[in-house]
Amino acid sequence: MTTFDLFIIGAGSGGVACARRAASYGAKVGIAEARRVGGTCVIRGCVPKKLMHYGAHFGEALADARAYGWQIGERPPLDFEALCRARNQEIDRLNGIYIDMLKKAGVELFTGRARVQPRWSGDGFVVAVGEHEIHTRRILVAVGAHPSLPEIDGIEHAMTSDEVLEQVYPLPRRLVVVGAGYIGVEFASIFRALGADTTLVLRGDLPLRGFEEDLRRHLTDEMRAHGLKIQPDTRVERIERTSDGFALHTNRGVIACDRVIYATGRAPIPNTRGIGLEDLGVRMSDIGVIQVDRGYASNVKGIFAVGDCSDHGGHGLGAAQFDLTPVAIAEGRALAEAQFNDNPQTVAYETIPTAVFALPQASSVGLSEARARSLGYDVTIYRTRFRPMVHTLTGGSGRTMMKLVVDKASDRVLGCHMVGEDAAEIIQGFAVALTAGATKAVFDATVALHPTAAEEFVTMYQPAQS
Amino acid sequence: MTTFDLFIIGAGSGGVACARRAASYGAKVGIAEARRVGGTCVIRGCVPKKLMHYGAHFGEALADARAYGWQIGERPPLDFEALCRARNQEIDRLNGIYIDMLKKAGVELFTGRARVQPRWSGDGFVVAVGEHEIHTRRILVAVGAHPSLPEIDGIEHAMTSDEVLEQVYPLPRRLVVVGAGYIGVEFASIFRALGADTTLVLRGDLPLRGFEEDLRRHLTDEMRAHGLKIQPDTRVERIERTSDGFALHTNRGVIACDRVIYATGRAPIPNTRGIGLEDLGVRMSDIGVIQVDRGYASNVKGIFAVGDCSDHGGHGLGAAQFDLTPVAIAEGRALAEAQFNDNPQTVAYETIPTAVFALPQASSVGLSEARARSLGYDVTIYRTRFRPMVHTLTGGSGRTMMKLVVDKASDRVLGCHMVGEDAAEIIQGFAVALTAGATKAVFDATVALHPTAAEEFVTMYQPAQS
Repeated sequence: MTTFDLFIIGAGSGGVACARRAASYGAKVGIAEARRVGGTCVIRGCVPKKLMHYGAHFGEALADARAYGWQIGERPPLDFEALCRARNQEIDRLNGIYIDMLKKAGVELFTGRARVQPRWSGDGFVVAVGEHEIHTRRILVAVGAHPSLPEIDGIEHAMTSDEVLEQVYPLPRRLVVVGAGYIGVEFASIFRALGADTTLVLRGDLPLRGFEEDLRRHLTDEMRAHGLKIQPDTRVERIERTSDGFALHTNRGVIACDRVIYATGRAPIPNTRGIGLEDLGVRMSDIGVIQVDRGYASNVKGIFAVGDCSDHGGHGLGAAQFDLTPVAIAEGRALAEAQFNDNPQTVAYETIPTAVFALPQASSVGLSEARARSLGYDVTIYRTRFRPMVHTLTGGSGRTMMKLVVDKASDRVLGCHMVGEDAAEIIQGFAVALTAGATKAVFDATVALHPTAAEEFVTMYQPAQS
Repeated sequence: MTTFDLFIIGAGSGGVACARRAASYGAKVGIAEARRVGGTCVIRGCVPKKLMHYGAHFGEALADARAYGWQIGERPPLDFEALCRARNQEIDRLNGIYIDMLKKAGVELFTGRARVQPRWSGDGFVVAVGEHEIHTRRILVAVGAHPSLPEIDGIEHAMTSDEVLEQVYPLPRRLVVVGAGYIGVEFASIFRALGADTTLVLRGDLPLRGFEEDLRRHLTDEMRAHGLKIQPDTRVERIERTSDGFALHTNRGVIACDRVIYATGRAPIPNTRGIGLEDLGVRMSDIGVIQVDRGYASNVKGIFAVGDCSDHGGHGLGAAQFDLTPVAIAEGRALAEAQFNDNPQTVAYETIPTAVFALPQASSVGLSEARARSLGYDVTIYRTRFRPMVHTLTGGSGRTMMKLVVDKASDRVLGCHMVGEDAAEIIQGFAVALTAGATKAVFDATVALHPTAAEEFVTMYQPAQS
């Protein structure tokens, strides 16, 4: 029996990235996947979500095009199920590509749920996948996370992101989205733009807890202007089936709808439970987050973890903010480089760019104003709000918002935040700039590119009165 | 009679930016404009061009939306003249805003052509604008540039960018654009997307001389795939009116069309000639480019120049590449800061981002591969080509291209180049990163934002085989 140098549990973003990189350095690598190769991102996350966002975006473009002389009458009808089917066809294609990539890299794929055995072979761990018994020197746990649901009456009527992004179903007429993290916000905003009468229900006062306050406020105003209903300070007590849909009973009355989507958080359990990690003594949090060091090693020698099922190199309690595809990929690659290429790599956790694919989009890199102040920085704030040029002809009321958080002592730009079209594409370069330690003087010296929205990030020169 | 601290000839981007900044420091500022306040950018350049680009972009979006379930039948008709009128209405509004901004800043506006007198007052220069005689301590020449046309038979039948962007006219059925700098490329690509049967005629082998070679080639292929005819190695000898339009006689045969647009370059003359500068001995090139030092001062004490009519702080022969609105603005502001706020500022000429608003867009910051090599750099090249995600459902053949030019010795990224959707918005942040001196290691350490196109700039890790 051959012994693997590395056996990976979970063929999602982190697992596949690590597998390919490790194999490229000659390591013998196996990988187990219980569902579909590609993981959350490809199968039921970023990719299908972005495709639906494109669909929503085109819906808005059809309305805006009129102001540019295109003679479109009524808003054309949407065949939503055709959109779901086209999306799924693309996901099937990507799933095939991922399987091929593993094969080409020489990574052996095992289909089924892996379980680490509570015994040792002569040279490492024993892992069972179906009828296969695998010997390996190292294990990478990269099993990701799952939607987590509250235990209330009728919760079985709710869709999670898995169903929203994997199933084919009619466009809801009246939709309620419960939960206002980025997934809930994206779904609510996308379905609204696709034509559903949509209500976003949240427990707090504003969506997107943890994001920059100005971003949260501005995006909330913009989404409301796009027709999304946002109902804060609301707790759902039970979901009841009615003759024509569902009734959500809340502390603030009953909401009638014909679909309920729950986006109230994600957790590694059940993925990290019952696969043998507890028996080996791998340290995990109560929701199943595996604790690892800066080299992504758990407390058990030879067992590593990256991605959403880990605490991201020991970044601690708030580490869920790093539950992002490219973070898992970067961690997986860094692990492979360290283990098989003697090339320790840095993942710049301080300047991870993130985006919310709502309409309009929002994006951030670095520290929010509040976080910077809580860390003891004395900061100068720059902020601008303006009508994006495309809406000078449409008459749309939308406004773009940009904000810079600058450390007074060092002049370093600590955070960039934006709400507006193309926010996701725009922020990537600024993430590189912040990683390079760019100061406000560097921003000021950089010439603008006109006419863009992005140029406003380099032309703000008067501090905001806060 | 009051004496101005600064009198500016030309209320375009550079002039207005300098006027407002200088006035904000208490300087007494006057400004003269012979045409409309706002200059090339606002009245007959960037802004109306971008609005037409939006129109073209929506035309493509209408086709793409079908793949996302929107049930649009035939391509809807375009009321092109309505687009021209909407564009002009917005330009009128901006023109009013610019006039207001000058008023609010306390800058005195004189309408008419200014002429510097060949005599001195007790405390400075004398400038005549119409019946006004103005005394001023300093003069800023910011008169911009004009389309320049070759002297061939029938050239009077050609439109220049001024007419293309200011007039209302029917959409050409068969259009020829002569000249393949960025203005010609943009017009050809925009009119093609709006529905005109368009031919781009150029003397050289590829459009966009001076840009990165891979960008030129890739954009040429993409524009051809969008239906644009590109005819290289072609010299127009004369333009003849025919019964149904025009015949362009070229060294490679006759091209029939009903509109001809010429975009064969721009020059400061006639703007810098005949306004009294020669009499004072201001040094200018044969096409009227005023030569200035790093402080934008001409050889005549008290006379400055910024923007398209200048050589951009002495940047020399190739300085026409800096004929961009934000460069003029940055120069104008830097001049005001130096003269009236004792605050010398740096304009980062090495990392000026530029974009070509074609369909798809192209953008660059920093050095092309060829330029880097000619400067003696030993470079590593990274390059990627991929299908943009939006086209996974449309089946469109378009490909995005990105390229990095990296200095082997220092690991610094010397240039970023891109062809693809949102290229203009994407490149701005990378311009800040390059100004900050970002190395390839910094690019590598920066986490990607998924799913975007921009992320590919930070995920290239294998050098290209050239």
